[in-house]
Amino acid sequence: MRSFASDNNSGIEAEILAAIMAANVAHATPYGNDPYTEKAAELLKQTFGKSSTAYFVNNGTAANVLSLQAMVRSYNAIICANSAHIIVHEVGAVVNFSGCSIFAIPQQHGKITAAAIEARYLESLQERHNNKPNVVSIAQTTECGTVYSIDELSAIAAVCKKYKLLFHMDGCRLSNAAAALNKSLKEITADVGVDVLTFGGTKNGLLFGEAIIFFREDLAADFGYIQKQGLQLNSKMRFLAAQFIPYIEKNIWLKNAGHANLMCQRLAKGLATRKDIKFVYPVESNQLFAYFSKSIIRATQAKFPYYILDEKTNFIRVVTSFDTSETEVDEFINLALAVKESA
Amino acid sequence: MRSFASDNNSGIEAEILAAIMAANVAHATPYGNDPYTEKAAELLKQTFGKSSTAYFVNNGTAANVLSLQAMVRSYNAIICANSAHIIVHEVGAVVNFSGCSIFAIPQQHGKITAAAIEARYLESLQERHNNKPNVVSIAQTTECGTVYSIDELSAIAAVCKKYKLLFHMDGCRLSNAAAALNKSLKEITADVGVDVLTFGGTKNGLLFGEAIIFFREDLAADFGYIQKQGLQLNSKMRFLAAQFIPYIEKNIWLKNAGHANLMCQRLAKGLATRKDIKFVYPVESNQLFAYFSKSIIRATQAKFPYYILDEKTNFIRVVTSFDTSETEVDEFINLALAVKESA
Amino acid sequence: MRSFASDNNSGIEAEILAAIMAANVAHATPYGNDPYTEKAAELLKQTFGKSSTAYFVNNGTAANVLSLQAMVRSYNAIICANSAHIIVHEVGAVVNFSGCSIFAIPQQHGKITAAAIEARYLESLQERHNNKPNVVSIAQTTECGTVYSIDELSAIAAVCKKYKLLFHMDGCRLSNAAAALNKSLKEITADVGVDVLTFGGTKNGLLFGEAIIFFREDLAADFGYIQKQGLQLNSKMRFLAAQFIPYIEKNIWLKNAGHANLMCQRLAKGLATRKDIKFVYPVESNQLFAYFSKSIIRATQAKFPYYILDEKTNFIRVVTSFDTSETEVDEFINLALAVKESA
Amino acid sequence: MRSFASDNNSGIEAEILAAIMAANVAHATPYGNDPYTEKAAELLKQTFGKSSTAYFVNNGTAANVLSLQAMVRSYNAIICANSAHIIVHEVGAVVNFSGCSIFAIPQQHGKITAAAIEARYLESLQERHNNKPNVVSIAQTTECGTVYSIDELSAIAAVCKKYKLLFHMDGCRLSNAAAALNKSLKEITADVGVDVLTFGGTKNGLLFGEAIIFFREDLAADFGYIQKQGLQLNSKMRFLAAQFIPYIEKNIWLKNAGHANLMCQRLAKGLATRKDIKFVYPVESNQLFAYFSKSIIRATQAKFPYYILDEKTNFIRVVTSFDTSETEVDEFINLALAVKESA
Repeated sequence: MRSFASDNNSGIEAEILAAIMAANVAHATPYGNDPYTEKAAELLKQTFGKSSTAYFVNNGTAANVLSLQAMVRSYNAIICANSAHIIVHEVGAVVNFSGCSIFAIPQQHGKITAAAIEARYLESLQERHNNKPNVVSIAQTTECGTVYSIDELSAIAAVCKKYKLLFHMDGCRLSNAAAALNKSLKEITADVGVDVLTFGGTKNGLLFGEAIIFFREDLAADFGYIQKQGLQLNSKMRFLAAQFIPYIEKNIWLKNAGHANLMCQRLAKGLATRKDIKFVYPVESNQLFAYFSKSIIRATQAKFPYYILDEKTNFIRVVTSFDTSETEVDEFINLALAVKESA
Repeated sequence: MRSFASDNNSGIEAEILAAIMAANVAHATPYGNDPYTEKAAELLKQTFGKSSTAYFVNNGTAANVLSLQAMVRSYNAIICANSAHIIVHEVGAVVNFSGCSIFAIPQQHGKITAAAIEARYLESLQERHNNKPNVVSIAQTTECGTVYSIDELSAIAAVCKKYKLLFHMDGCRLSNAAAALNKSLKEITADVGVDVLTFGGTKNGLLFGEAIIFFREDLAADFGYIQKQGLQLNSKMRFLAAQFIPYIEKNIWLKNAGHANLMCQRLAKGLATRKDIKFVYPVESNQLFAYFSKSIIRATQAKFPYYILDEKTNFIRVVTSFDTSETEVDEFINLALAVKESA
Repeated sequence: MRSFASDNNSGIEAEILAAIMAANVAHATPYGNDPYTEKAAELLKQTFGKSSTAYFVNNGTAANVLSLQAMVRSYNAIICANSAHIIVHEVGAVVNFSGCSIFAIPQQHGKITAAAIEARYLESLQERHNNKPNVVSIAQTTECGTVYSIDELSAIAAVCKKYKLLFHMDGCRLSNAAAALNKSLKEITADVGVDVLTFGGTKNGLLFGEAIIFFREDLAADFGYIQKQGLQLNSKMRFLAAQFIPYIEKNIWLKNAGHANLMCQRLAKGLATRKDIKFVYPVESNQLFAYFSKSIIRATQAKFPYYILDEKTNFIRVVTSFDTSETEVDEFINLALAVKESA
Repeated sequence: MRSFASDNNSGIEAEILAAIMAANVAHATPYGNDPYTEKAAELLKQTFGKSSTAYFVNNGTAANVLSLQAMVRSYNAIICANSAHIIVHEVGAVVNFSGCSIFAIPQQHGKITAAAIEARYLESLQERHNNKPNVVSIAQTTECGTVYSIDELSAIAAVCKKYKLLFHMDGCRLSNAAAALNKSLKEITADVGVDVLTFGGTKNGLLFGEAIIFFREDLAADFGYIQKQGLQLNSKMRFLAAQFIPYIEKNIWLKNAGHANLMCQRLAKGLATRKDIKFVYPVESNQLFAYFSKSIIRATQAKFPYYILDEKTNFIRVVTSFDTSETEVDEFINLALAVKESA
């Protein structure tokens, strides 16, 4: 059974698993001082640019929390979308670790604009007993599956520069964004002015593991301490890092994300023939949000699990993965199209 | 090449790796709501007793930090040995997460006594602006490779009960202690009065993963929140938890730890024939601490890496692993015995 | 010069200052173990009921932070109005100290309703990676100067009881609420089901000092530690606590707050004759929010300072104090009424 | 009754109280934007040097915690004496606020040496999973009442410079040290290389209040946020700051501390005639530590309270204050000398 609930329901891609097994020979120095971690870090440096530095952590929440920890002090605030993962899906871990506050601003389709960021920043200056905002954090792709364009990213970078705000990107699905934009990973991060990035692996075929990429040396200077204190320095780090070797070297990040995106487009196209299915956001990566009828939900969920985000409005989310097959997508479509009348 | 530097230099035991691969079929519900995690938790409940509850985390530091987080408030203090891992090897993570303080007390061979705990507790009552101690934390086996006897554990449990202190055990090498004492895991934890335990996997053949075992329901009540906020709720939890299935079901914990202990005994016995090697602590599990001569260090380190803890005194630590072979141990011995004169 | 900017612009009431001077004889045991602190605490126990316990802290932010610290763990959330002081005016101190998150909900005139609290609580249960809400915090009087009625408070207490949420009240202007409602301090706190209260002094005639009142023994149990760790256990506590003796014994809390309320009513009545002044919230205590014309602002601010909250809309706040005189109020009114035409 | 238990048992010096009363006219802008706070800060700048900046907080614990908060990140460590106030008398507040760890080193008579600091620093580099030490904190006078000489301070400053460690001084009794050394406040702080200082008022005649002095602009840059978030920005700040005006302008800091020191010397000299009284530390400021006989304790404590630090050894502490009189000191001496035989 394959699920459309989330891309983290998937397993381990074959070449990734092979890399883990290949690293399981003899002994290795622990805590990342091993040839696998060194090679993976080097590959990421080649990918994201010479001035970048990579660290590996266990999961997406850890990646967000520790990367932001390196950017803020307790009296700072992070400006981000009110739909951001760091607010609603991490039991307040960012706030708990760093002590800082979050200034949530409205978004459209998961995206925040440079203008809204500027407005919120200026508003905060009006009240001296407010936290001091110093970071803007966005998710690429967004929680709505949409993708910031290069222009949108550049506008955000410009407002960051204007007010000396740091630019943080939650890239747990960055590969899907790069695939959708047909750009390299560097073009949508370093080149547009991102300061610190999380680069996802878990949702895209890894057993576990995310990378944190620093584009500024000063922010990375003491990160080794933060990583260890932040519970993310595994002793057998080689098995986490080794996965990133084929991920980068063999472009598995792109192959997997591109496939997931394609499957989602295929699904969207198939479902679009029904007038009673309303798409909520543009389908730009591997997530599809729509209003289904109860009948369609009944017909499709019998076979394929996915989230109903709101029972009253039949607001649903469908996510495709690196291992979603055309057969499954077509079966999903067929089940939906076979429904006679909606209710 | 195999290392004697630490048991975390080792790789993945074959049956553990097989369990990971077996879990890599189709999709599974994330965040631990999968059959693998359920089965692993159930097996741990059978092992540690009906009133126990198990959670899985990524590494030993995380296990210590989150288990203690569940036991303290910021104004509390933890009484432990001044050699404890939570003080010297975790970049102050326990203190940073919980805000509490640590009252370090002297140890002998890594062990603290019920009398010393009582004395420190009573001393703390003399000063009203001290933190309020409410937890005693010990490591079994200790950082010196020694093993608390059942009597010693019971005495500590008694003083905890007397003053309503919680009893925490850092069991990153608990299997080695159980093997050394020839007792079940339950007999040296639940049965002697431990309240919260960390149960190690990483140093004993797992790719990664430790369990936290609560023996008191009230302390576990909200642990799901602490686990997520503490960056330890991996989405693909099945691959972490699945390793604990053969670990328990096939007694790999015992097989591996017993073997490591045996190799260490063999090594100690072999080296003991040299009068110029002085053992620092009793060799009771898989760690051996000694003073070697410079010549012996030179002769053995050429082949086998291990830690020189103090360059001036030639204080060294040798650790055996689940995959240390008799051949390797004998070769180590032979290299040491072949040294003519010490210097 | 007297200001209408805030009641914290005022000085020390004569009898309060006399109490400080009366405590300045000989030596006293520090850290609150003195007869002044004992007497003040006893008077507060008589005021708020036998099951209450009082502690003294330096300022309102400290009172909010430490009282909430005693109620939450890092994974909890506090439900409160999006206008709450603890969100916007304390540099995120509550969040920084406790690690918890805040679930801000919409308010009307500064008040939140039992229904909105219930809705937010139930919504939070939908997402397992949310913080766990366990406290509802309201301000009485509100940041808008409005006053919760006994019925409104009882409804909030009922929803708290229903979901086992703790009821916290920010009472930095509680005296103004009691005066406005013509109720005793106990009737609007303990009797309606408040669990923990901050009781303000600074804005109502004290040199400095607020009390935290616990209505549940279990929450107060370890508060002495929290107070010291939270930087609020002054050594010369007698001078802070002594102020609460006349404050309670001579009903200065009521005299001062009642007077401030009266002055605000007088001001509101006087200004109401101008049709071009629009009151934003009901004037129920000692704060008045309105839209003034630029001409009125010019005319009145020349003499009396007050806040212009929004330069574009001429949204202003005027606050009266225990030492605001009728003459000053009348002069303010006259200046406003003398303005010919608005612009 | 006057106590010899602590200088914080004393009350408010007459000129200090007069300054508070003088500030109690009309209204003032809150949160330190008032002429009293400005003047006090300016006077401190004149005292400590042009490059210094002063902030005011409520008490000594707050002064230590917030000044150190500005100097460390959570992964840092503070090197200080194992007798330091920040370890044993503040319920772990430094550790709780900042998340950092404390590396306690042995002291003699409360003093730590440059050599011991260097040794501990170098030791910490041996273990990569240690916190990163970046601050040295000493108390002047020490907890033992001794006073660091200019040479000792310079040696510590030199080792700080050598390893880029920040130099923090807990100066809750700095005035006593300056008086004892016959040096200006600047000579024993800025001039020897202190980076951040707490400057005590409460123990030396103030109602309440301590100053934090930054000698480096970069460390002070965001301190306004830390002060507010750290619960130390009183709204009626004028009454706290106003006390520092005569304290500096009229040299009350020196008059009071000099007197307290003198009284302690007089007491020490008087008691020294008894051979059965053993002084534990050199009596260099206003604290005297000694072993008394039980008979002497009985005879003196009947009239004058002071601390018995160890009941078994009759280890006692006597502290003189700005308001200790010669008569009281002489009476104490006479009571002690009148004891016939010791037991």
